[in-house]
Amino acid sequence: ATTFRASEHQHIRYNPLQDEWVLVSAHRMKRPWQGQVEPPLLTTVPRHDPHNPLCPGATRANGEVNPHYEGTFLFDNDFPALRPDAPSPGPSDHPLFQAEAARGVCKVMCFHPWSDVTLPLMSVPEIRAVVDAWASVTEDLGAQYPWVQIFENKGAMMGCSNPHPHCQVWASSFLPDVAQHEERSQRAYQSQHGEPLLMEYGRQELLRKDRLVLTSEHWLVLVPFWAVWPFQTLLLPRRHVRRLPELTPAERDDLASIMKKLLTKYDNLFETSFPYSMGWHGAPMGSEAGANWDHWQLHAHYYPPLLRSATVRKFMVGYEMLAQAQRDLTPEQAAERLRALPEVHYRLGQD
Amino acid sequence: ATTFRASEHQHIRYNPLQDEWVLVSAHRMKRPWQGQVEPPLLTTVPRHDPHNPLCPGATRANGEVNPHYEGTFLFDNDFPALRPDAPSPGPSDHPLFQAEAARGVCKVMCFHPWSDVTLPLMSVPEIRAVVDAWASVTEDLGAQYPWVQIFENKGAMMGCSNPHPHCQVWASSFLPDVAQHEERSQRAYQSQHGEPLLMEYGRQELLRKDRLVLTSEHWLVLVPFWAVWPFQTLLLPRRHVRRLPELTPAERDDLASIMKKLLTKYDNLFETSFPYSMGWHGAPMGSEAGANWDHWQLHAHYYPPLLRSATVRKFMVGYEMLAQAQRDLTPEQAAERLRALPEVHYRLGQD
Ligand SMILES: O=P(O)(O)O[C@H]1O[C@H](CO)[C@@H](O)[C@H](O)[C@H]1O
Ligand SMILES: O=P(O)(O)O[C@H]1O[C@H](CO)[C@@H](O)[C@H](O)[C@H]1O
Repeated sequence: ATTFRASEHQHIRYNPLQDEWVLVSAHRMKRPWQGQVEPPLLTTVPRHDPHNPLCPGATRANGEVNPHYEGTFLFDNDFPALRPDAPSPGPSDHPLFQAEAARGVCKVMCFHPWSDVTLPLMSVPEIRAVVDAWASVTEDLGAQYPWVQIFENKGAMMGCSNPHPHCQVWASSFLPDVAQHEERSQRAYQSQHGEPLLMEYGRQELLRKDRLVLTSEHWLVLVPFWAVWPFQTLLLPRRHVRRLPELTPAERDDLASIMKKLLTKYDNLFETSFPYSMGWHGAPMGSEAGANWDHWQLHAHYYPPLLRSATVRKFMVGYEMLAQAQRDLTPEQAAERLRALPEVHYRLGQD
Repeated sequence: ATTFRASEHQHIRYNPLQDEWVLVSAHRMKRPWQGQVEPPLLTTVPRHDPHNPLCPGATRANGEVNPHYEGTFLFDNDFPALRPDAPSPGPSDHPLFQAEAARGVCKVMCFHPWSDVTLPLMSVPEIRAVVDAWASVTEDLGAQYPWVQIFENKGAMMGCSNPHPHCQVWASSFLPDVAQHEERSQRAYQSQHGEPLLMEYGRQELLRKDRLVLTSEHWLVLVPFWAVWPFQTLLLPRRHVRRLPELTPAERDDLASIMKKLLTKYDNLFETSFPYSMGWHGAPMGSEAGANWDHWQLHAHYYPPLLRSATVRKFMVGYEMLAQAQRDLTPEQAAERLRALPEVHYRLGQD
């Protein structure tokens, strides 16, 4: 019988955090691509555009004028998917027709006053200011809402409609689907094994090494064993930390520095401003914040779509939508490529 | 207190078939769109291109020459994600690192010898031939594999790399994730309520009417209560049918006819060749085919990405990937728009 090699033989892998499977068919990287090629990315964004509602001093859709902010800037999304006061749909009349109330707020956070930078092109102290702003918005909104979702859609390919460096924060009165899955898995793991799932997972990856991308005094970046997106990564603190506001000053500085390195590697991979969606997951808050959430470990997911070049992405379509996620290179191959990339941004040599 | 109106007040809805929630924020349709605009779709595809590996008489990547087929044509995918003989990864050494064997086959099915047609532009008898080919490939591969996933990725936006009308068939030795969810939900519903989930659901939608798009003697098309994609639909037989091969000749003719109507409406919505991923789900087969699968009801899902026009799509990104699916119009609004569209294709007046 043939010896199994992950890079040659398709197999399925289990995601114990979100209770999902992925089909890994690494030999598929060999297939030629004749499909859609992404439009070239905007390369020149003006540093300041008075008509861009995210810029300092600009007027937003609701008529408000932005301050001349110099660091980060947080404001209410003018077209929020969640509002604080939506009435309840009332009781459902049938088990197949269940609707429930959803309340919340949606905020936008600008990372920097300039439109022509991205996180990897910002300085470590500037990124540290973003980390602090994330921690404080989590604390503020978490006082009222059980879930505070911080996420960044970067690049037009990821539905981002404004090139100014920013993320969003959607806080909700309900635990969203993915949060529910992670809650269930982490709770079950803790009760079965007596320690948090992601603490043991991080320790194992440090021993096994082949999926590590970056390590620092306080943080790890790795391509998870169950990664779905070609160059997906998981960013984890080494210490048991449940939520962003708990991070110490040293951990925050170190986070800013490892994020800069990771995002620089991402940009260097295809010499482009690497598109992705990323977001933070931490223990639920709101009125239940005081309960025991020790099974939770803070982490960030990075989901970047590019597969082969700056213009050829992975499509999660037919089979993926109707059956199961499928990937075309192994997580170990992806980690190896990311590890090998320089930590100096490709554009910084040229400027 | 304000009276709840689904078209104005955000709320969450439950998908009992796949055990998922969706956030419905219909007021968001009002927000302006300044993000990525899709490239215009290829409007002129030559009827025959000797270099297109899907055309009759063309040579494929493996050197084989296609027959001069006149109806449908089924062949092995030259770059399959699943092969029949992959070795097993062996037992896992840790609960957080679980991998399992995956075996299977991937086939491509051409719908028609011409490259410049799509299903809605084909005749009902031609579509009926596709239905028969779907039923027979399900039967053939289902003899060996527990799951036979038929799916169509239509349009470059959906990762389709060849404009020739075709679908794919991936059969696997494992029950994929989505199939597992549907299996669990349908089994639980049957054991609690004594009838198949989707039989009761179809009946309820016939009574409630506001999400129906099309009905015929043997079939229903509706926008499910829990739809995620803007104009997502569910296609269901009225009779209790577990798998495609069980369909009677009359049901197959009627299916061809209702599919032509649905896909014509889709094309008419934004006067474009409407992109989507679609696929069939039916009871598992393989060595367990003889077990009791009466809780299953055959159905097809259509997942089309367009939201506002032929060039503005819905992005399932940051919040959707990290927290929960979110939609910008209600399923009832989507059904109403689809219902109102003509059943004659917009291009047929012009030709
Ligand atoms: O097999 P194709 O058409 O080349 O590829 C397309 O469909 C597959 C199945 O949904 C996906 O895995 C690919 O990402 C997509 O580009
Ligand atoms: O809020 P934005 O940036 O306009 O919109 C973007 O992110 C949202 C949250 O992931 C998505 O629902 C939208 O589809 C996407 O275009």
